[in-house]
Amino acid sequence: MKRREFLKAAGIGLATSAVAAPAIAQSTPELRWRLAASWPKSLDTLFGAVEHIGKRVAEITDNKFQIQGFAAGEIVPGLQVLDAVQNGTVEMGHTAGYYYVGKDPSFAFATALPFGLNARQQESWQQNGGGMELLGELFRQYNCVGFPIGNTGAQMGGWFRKEIKTVDDMKGLKFRIGGFAGRVVSKLGVIPQQLAPGDIYPALEKGAIDAAEWVGPYDDEKLGFVKIAKYYYYPGWWEGGAQGHVFINLDKWNELPKSYQSLLVTVIREAGLNQTAKYDAQNPPAMKRLLAAGAQLRAFSPEILDASYKAAQDTYAEISQTNALFKKLNESISAYRGEAYLWWQIAELPFDSYMIRMRART
Amino acid sequence: MKRREFLKAAGIGLATSAVAAPAIAQSTPELRWRLAASWPKSLDTLFGAVEHIGKRVAEITDNKFQIQGFAAGEIVPGLQVLDAVQNGTVEMGHTAGYYYVGKDPSFAFATALPFGLNARQQESWQQNGGGMELLGELFRQYNCVGFPIGNTGAQMGGWFRKEIKTVDDMKGLKFRIGGFAGRVVSKLGVIPQQLAPGDIYPALEKGAIDAAEWVGPYDDEKLGFVKIAKYYYYPGWWEGGAQGHVFINLDKWNELPKSYQSLLVTVIREAGLNQTAKYDAQNPPAMKRLLAAGAQLRAFSPEILDASYKAAQDTYAEISQTNALFKKLNESISAYRGEAYLWWQIAELPFDSYMIRMRART
Repeated sequence: MKRREFLKAAGIGLATSAVAAPAIAQSTPELRWRLAASWPKSLDTLFGAVEHIGKRVAEITDNKFQIQGFAAGEIVPGLQVLDAVQNGTVEMGHTAGYYYVGKDPSFAFATALPFGLNARQQESWQQNGGGMELLGELFRQYNCVGFPIGNTGAQMGGWFRKEIKTVDDMKGLKFRIGGFAGRVVSKLGVIPQQLAPGDIYPALEKGAIDAAEWVGPYDDEKLGFVKIAKYYYYPGWWEGGAQGHVFINLDKWNELPKSYQSLLVTVIREAGLNQTAKYDAQNPPAMKRLLAAGAQLRAFSPEILDASYKAAQDTYAEISQTNALFKKLNESISAYRGEAYLWWQIAELPFDSYMIRMRART
Repeated sequence: MKRREFLKAAGIGLATSAVAAPAIAQSTPELRWRLAASWPKSLDTLFGAVEHIGKRVAEITDNKFQIQGFAAGEIVPGLQVLDAVQNGTVEMGHTAGYYYVGKDPSFAFATALPFGLNARQQESWQQNGGGMELLGELFRQYNCVGFPIGNTGAQMGGWFRKEIKTVDDMKGLKFRIGGFAGRVVSKLGVIPQQLAPGDIYPALEKGAIDAAEWVGPYDDEKLGFVKIAKYYYYPGWWEGGAQGHVFINLDKWNELPKSYQSLLVTVIREAGLNQTAKYDAQNPPAMKRLLAAGAQLRAFSPEILDASYKAAQDTYAEISQTNALFKKLNESISAYRGEAYLWWQIAELPFDSYMIRMRART
């Protein structure tokens, strides 16, 4: 009897066990990671996702893999999360891709392109429409892997001290507006301002800026804008569905056992689903409270929307001339959007429209 | 020195270790579970979620926890999944709650109530609006815990051999329609038919039924209806956002270590998010193919929608008189919907509407 047959017959399988044991031991190493967020803890939808990731990963690994979340400013400023992940200051971060359009405008596609996709479309384009593969090329240049996480839903267009009805009303307007959209509205004469959340209210109060947009009712209410700028515009056409991103340092990612990689992907996706659901549950009552506090709802006029749409398309054409990845991303998202809205107008929109009409009747 | 202080000072902590060691060992037991689905494998969005659950759980536990999925009919028929989970024939199932409205009409709320919520609202109502707690009471009566999983999005209204324009046209119509909606349309004179997916096409071909609805373009295309019933109606007002459910036998659930419970919740939610994204990506090209194959799109007339809406509300009022849980669920979902659509009409709908208008212009 050969040695292998003997072992098999004896049911010992020692050789197998000897190999398997270290593999299992390596698959659940003790790890402590730090996650830097772009958000203060008071934004409990966004920072809640950070806390959820830490809690779940600890539960599932019996505390072997611990991820501690840090709010904006605790380790690095909120708008430098990508840099901190890239250079390994922290292992991972929770942020918005479009905060980094200064590095490459292609980052806009990770979060929300002006006149881009709605929340479900943004998610499905990334997962099933080639978005993650294209964005992955970008993230690798910054020594990261990136995963989409959650969505705010369609945002509001912000708080204005006076009404704006025409494109002329926008000229010279000092407007705090997020990410890539500042570049688009500057074509209409707006002077875009980048301010961290905590700085927006004092700037608006002092008159250093004329208007400010943040997210939607639930988050905006916390920042108190209704007290100093009553006109609340909609829709936030530059963020029809803004998706967050988790970035992980590429070297740290590659060092993880497969089981931990798989765990992180699933937990990040769960946290994202929870975050979207929380926004969807909290925005409606917050909007009611804001209306009771004196918010005056105003729709952007067709003139402003159409001029903004044209400014956006012109911007994309300009950038595409010199940035091949941006061009590829824009072609991908445009083709996807054309088909997605063909379908959306048939089933989703008529259902929602009918339910809204019936709500008004009762 | 007391005994506890001695142990602490000596840094031994043997008592703790002695307790902790078996807990860790128990926290990753070797388990093999069976999951019965209500779907054939050909429905790769729905059955894909089943396969994803098994794959992910195995990856994360280094194959210690294995969940094997079975298609409809392999262990139990597709419409008896809840029963199989309840009596422990299988540990878990992937199905639609509303298949069990014959046991209790309250099951309708788990999936989609006619004129209920859209996909994101259904998710957020369950997660953050009290839905899961109320439905949990129902599921416990059937010895189960239940978790929502994914959404088809707003469905289509089905395939009709001839046009229907008035409520009169619906009288006597033999219509294969899912779940609870059959009870609503029967008030309009429709004769609802319950047929498993594989039986629908032959019944429609032979003329045993006059019309059939299933899900939306991607799934409907597989069943081939366009060849025998050209009029494709929208929207599927009885399923504005149909959510699946995973049921787990309550005893089996309680036997799981916390880490496995936590893992199942997160993986089920990830699989759901993936499923919704896949529908959103696959429905648009499928709709284009169906239109190319001769599908004639038709909107339900306002007369039919309004009569159906009234029939639905009458049905809910009737059932609420004798079923306290149904009444509570209906009150919960109605209050939630009122606020949710107040918000939806401000940001989401205007964004989508504008994007659809611009699509038509280009």
